[in-house]
Amino acid sequence: MADVARAAGVSMATTSRALNDQPGVAPATRERVLEVARQHAYVVSPAASTLSGGATRRIAVVVPHLSRWFFGEVLEGIDATLRGAGYDLMLYRVGEGADRDSFFELLPARRKVDGVLVVGIPASEAEQERLTTMGVQIVAAGGQVAPYPTVSIDDHGAGRQAVNHLVNLGHRRIAMIDAIDPNASHWPVAGRALAFTEAREERDLDPDPELFQRVPWSARHGAEAMAALLALDEPPTAVLAHSDELAIGALHTIRRAGLDTPRDISVVGIDDHPLSEELDLTTVRQDVREQGRLAARMLLDGLAGLDQAPWTVLPTRLVIRGTTGRPRQG
Amino acid sequence: MADVARAAGVSMATTSRALNDQPGVAPATRERVLEVARQHAYVVSPAASTLSGGATRRIAVVVPHLSRWFFGEVLEGIDATLRGAGYDLMLYRVGEGADRDSFFELLPARRKVDGVLVVGIPASEAEQERLTTMGVQIVAAGGQVAPYPTVSIDDHGAGRQAVNHLVNLGHRRIAMIDAIDPNASHWPVAGRALAFTEAREERDLDPDPELFQRVPWSARHGAEAMAALLALDEPPTAVLAHSDELAIGALHTIRRAGLDTPRDISVVGIDDHPLSEELDLTTVRQDVREQGRLAARMLLDGLAGLDQAPWTVLPTRLVIRGTTGRPRQG
Repeated sequence: MADVARAAGVSMATTSRALNDQPGVAPATRERVLEVARQHAYVVSPAASTLSGGATRRIAVVVPHLSRWFFGEVLEGIDATLRGAGYDLMLYRVGEGADRDSFFELLPARRKVDGVLVVGIPASEAEQERLTTMGVQIVAAGGQVAPYPTVSIDDHGAGRQAVNHLVNLGHRRIAMIDAIDPNASHWPVAGRALAFTEAREERDLDPDPELFQRVPWSARHGAEAMAALLALDEPPTAVLAHSDELAIGALHTIRRAGLDTPRDISVVGIDDHPLSEELDLTTVRQDVREQGRLAARMLLDGLAGLDQAPWTVLPTRLVIRGTTGRPRQG
Repeated sequence: MADVARAAGVSMATTSRALNDQPGVAPATRERVLEVARQHAYVVSPAASTLSGGATRRIAVVVPHLSRWFFGEVLEGIDATLRGAGYDLMLYRVGEGADRDSFFELLPARRKVDGVLVVGIPASEAEQERLTTMGVQIVAAGGQVAPYPTVSIDDHGAGRQAVNHLVNLGHRRIAMIDAIDPNASHWPVAGRALAFTEAREERDLDPDPELFQRVPWSARHGAEAMAALLALDEPPTAVLAHSDELAIGALHTIRRAGLDTPRDISVVGIDDHPLSEELDLTTVRQDVREQGRLAARMLLDGLAGLDQAPWTVLPTRLVIRGTTGRPRQG
């Protein structure tokens, strides 16, 4: 900290106040101190930080969305575990761009939290390195292929369960409605889509590229993608949707077109959204709340110096309801 | 603070650390200090707190649920406004009972936040008084009849819009599926249900008490209530659901029974849930995100010493889609 104070040309007390986000520092001075700290990659040793009273008993939870079922559900699990351990939850909705840069730059420098739980978005290597250098622990939930401890489902396996169900019913002309998320655009691997494209080769499915639709994540886009599939010369006999919300949109298009599931077309989703049971949607169930609980537990274990599992993968299972069946005999 | 230190038999420094939730205090000592502070109704003047560096730039957001659409959506609005103003969001999921008592007792005593935003649950008068005594500002969103500044819709008006739509189509045997929330059981007024019972009298509707179903809040319970209505000697020709999620459950029961909306029965919800458009559900739309934004703005204005509106009521509007129509001619 002395180096930072010297380089910024201010007292140690001012530097400490600026880094700890306390009042009594002019905004321009605060920014200068933070900038110098960033340049110096100001390191706080966790031990020194605890000795100097630096443990905040706060965990930052970083999410790309708040209004989708998945994120609310994972927050329920995280909240229950953190509260049980006497930690407070600081919530950060971080999209792409400036928001995100600002989050990963300023949070650790200001020592606002002891740990970071990243949900549903991958942190880049640079971001991860920054947090590690600052002595801030990081755990991920709901994603995968992260270079830090992670709790997730096997997205590839979930996709495979869904497509296998359709193939085993006798479907060969199968479509997928895949989703892209503009708030997590550099997500490295799309496991569910990969399972679909692999199954097309391995299980001798119709390779027509028009059967693979990729749309922004929403029920409305699911409905539009389904309309595009129904406008093909030969529509698919079955559809795998990236998530239940997309599948619910697709079901509506099917009904609006006067068609029936599963008589005319089968639909399977992934998630087991709370409305899926009422809509009788066949899906692959994941336990999202448990992912939140386990990820929070993993982070607290790390803060306590206990061994952490590097990657916990929760099982998914096919839930067969009323939207899937054998294809109609031509 | 000197009184608290004297009564607890500890130093001022220890008292300060205990109240500010900093380390270096034995758990038993901390509890004793907090207990004494509670007994003394330890008052922090906001001005003194700021002078002594006490402004935390943190806001507590208190919700009874995280995994429901409404609460995620309101959090989106709150988050955007707080982040824009440089405040951090501390999230507390608080149900009934011990959780809740602990929240309202400990949070202000520990000076963790500058203000509290209560979403979708009423704070009791005792709880509100406690926060006020501690110098913590409080604002409510998504509720009403609160004794502090509040942003909400007019629940009674929304219910009236929904039931009027059914009456104006010619329905007279109208049912309501009302929802109770175990996490907010002492909610004082059920505006939507009140609008329904008033309309029954004023607009000459069938007063059969079996047409009023009250169930726990979920799509599944909406489906079950609808089944109970279909099992009456004379089922209703139209149903008003307390929320879209209950309406979606009801729609599924109707479809499963081989009936059709609106030919056999009309259904109207309240909310405009993101899936409602895809399910073609007639509903009364509320702007939930805007309620979050305005409530956060109101709280920040209060902290800045600006005038606050005591109660902001956002408009709702009927969105007519495919699940409502004229009753079948006998």
